Amino acid sequence: MKIKPDDFRITPGSKVNLAKLPTAAEQNISKQDGHEALRPMIKRLRELQEVLYAQGKHKVLVVFQAMDAGGKDSTIRNVIGPLNPQGVRVTSFKAPTPEELSRDYLWRIHRETPGKGMMRVFNRSHYEDVLIVRVKELVPRKVWSKRYEQINQFERLLYDEGTTIVKFFLHISKDYQKQRLQRRLDRPDKHWKFNPDDLAERARWNDYQVAFEDAISQCSPRHAPWYVVPAEHRPFRNLLVAQTLIDTLESLDMKYPEPTFDPAKITID
Amino acid sequence: MKIKPDDFRITPGSKVNLAKLPTAAEQNISKQDGHEALRPMIKRLRELQEVLYAQGKHKVLVVFQAMDAGGKDSTIRNVIGPLNPQGVRVTSFKAPTPEELSRDYLWRIHRETPGKGMMRVFNRSHYEDVLIVRVKELVPRKVWSKRYEQINQFERLLYDEGTTIVKFFLHISKDYQKQRLQRRLDRPDKHWKFNPDDLAERARWNDYQVAFEDAISQCSPRHAPWYVVPAEHRPFRNLLVAQTLIDTLESLDMKYPEPTFDPAKITID
Repeated sequence: MKIKPDDFRITPGSKVNLAKLPTAAEQNISKQDGHEALRPMIKRLRELQEVLYAQGKHKVLVVFQAMDAGGKDSTIRNVIGPLNPQGVRVTSFKAPTPEELSRDYLWRIHRETPGKGMMRVFNRSHYEDVLIVRVKELVPRKVWSKRYEQINQFERLLYDEGTTIVKFFLHISKDYQKQRLQRRLDRPDKHWKFNPDDLAERARWNDYQVAFEDAISQCSPRHAPWYVVPAEHRPFRNLLVAQTLIDTLESLDMKYPEPTFDPAKITID
Repeated sequence: MKIKPDDFRITPGSKVNLAKLPTAAEQNISKQDGHEALRPMIKRLRELQEVLYAQGKHKVLVVFQAMDAGGKDSTIRNVIGPLNPQGVRVTSFKAPTPEELSRDYLWRIHRETPGKGMMRVFNRSHYEDVLIVRVKELVPRKVWSKRYEQINQFERLLYDEGTTIVKFFLHISKDYQKQRLQRRLDRPDKHWKFNPDDLAERARWNDYQVAFEDAISQCSPRHAPWYVVPAEHRPFRNLLVAQTLIDTLESLDMKYPEPTFDPAKITID
C-alpha cells in the first residue's frame, strides 16, 4: 500500500469540513500486515532521527490532537516510542497549573519547544486553548477569537528560527468514540483511562467538531501544516503518521556533521 | 541464562575495587540469543511501566554512569527506548550552562527528578560533580569532598518523598574503551560521537577509576543502590539492566488504581 501524506494535508486557506473527511482508511489493512509494513518505516525514522540528533541543526515539533479516545497515546507509543528517547521527548499537556494559568497560554508551550537536534512531541498542545477553552467558554469569545492569529504568529516564529512543525488531527467518528470509551469500561486494566467527565465532553461533540474545523482551517500555513488522519483503522493511522514524519524529515536534507578533526591522524593510546 | 541483579549490587558500606569487578559477563551470549531473551523482559517492563503511570503513586529515577564509550546511549536505546515515551523521560546532563553553574550542582538535577507515575532516566547525573569535577579539579578538594554526603542526603530526600532510585555503572576496561573509540574513528556515521577531548579524559583513566570507586563506595545506601554492570558483552549488559529494572518495579507491588466510578452503571450515549 502506497501511502501519500499529501492527500491528507490541509491546503492553506481552505475551509475544512470534518464531516466530509474520512475517519477510516478506504482500504483496511490487517494488524499483522500493518505491523510488517510499519517495521521498515520505523527503521528509516530511527535513521533520520539519529542524523537529526547528530547534526544538531534542525528542531522538530510534532503535535497530536484528537477527540477523547482518538488514539493519541496509542499513536505515540507505536510511532514515536521506537525512536531513541535521548533525542525525542513527549510532553502531555494537562489542565494548566496555577503557575501556568498566571501566564499567557503560550508560556508553558514555549518552554517545551525543541532545541537543536531534538524532536519534541506534544500530546495535546496550545490548540486546546481554542478547543476545550472555547467550547467550555473558559475565556470569552473576544479572547479566544484572537488566538488563531496569535498561534499563527507563534508557529511562524518557531519556523523562522529553525523549527519544522507537523500537526496531526486524529479524526474519528462519534460512534467510534463510543466503542473506545466502552472498551475502557469493559476492561479493568483500562478503567484508569476512563474519566466520567469525558462524557460531558462527548455531549458537546458537535461544538468540538466546529472548534477543530476553525482551528485547522485558520492555522494551516504551508510551514506548519495539519494532517487530518483517518484514525479508526489503527494500522493505517500508524503508517500514515510514520510516512508523514519520514517525508518531513527527508525534506530537511540532513547530513552527519563534518568532523572537526582528521580521523586518520588520531591515535588512541 | 538466569540473571541475578543482586550479584551486581554494591553492598552498603563496602569498599569497591573496580579492578576486581568484571567488565565482561562470565558467559558470553550471542547477539541473536540476547535479542530473543530481551524481548519478553521488555514486554514485562512495559506492563510494569504502564501500571506505574496508571497508578500515579511511585516515582522512579534511573541513573546511568560510565567511562566514555561505556555504552550508556546504547543501553538506554535498547532497554529504555521500547517503553512508552509518555511515562518515561531521558535527561542527558552535559557540561553545565552559566545559569546552572550559578546555582549549586544539585539544582539542575532536582528540576529533572520524576513526578508521580513517571520514570526519569539520567544519562550522566550529579555524580559527574564528584567525577569529572574531581578529576579535573574544577573545584577544590574541600568542596567536592563534602559532596558524597550531600548526594546521600539528597537521594535520601527523594527516597523519603516516594522516589525509587536505581543507579547503574557500566563497567568496561581501558582496552575495550580503545576499541570503541577506534570504531568511532573508523565509521563515518560515528564520527559525530567522537570528541578529541575524550582522549585527554582517557589519559586520566586511573584517576577516574578511583573517583568512581569513591562515589560508588560512599553513595550505595540500600535505598539507592549502585549496580556495577559488566558492560563489554552488550547482550548481557542489556539483560542485566532490564532484569534489575523489572525486579525493582515488581518490588513496588503496584496496582491499577481503583475506579472512582462504577463501570457497570455508566452508559455512553
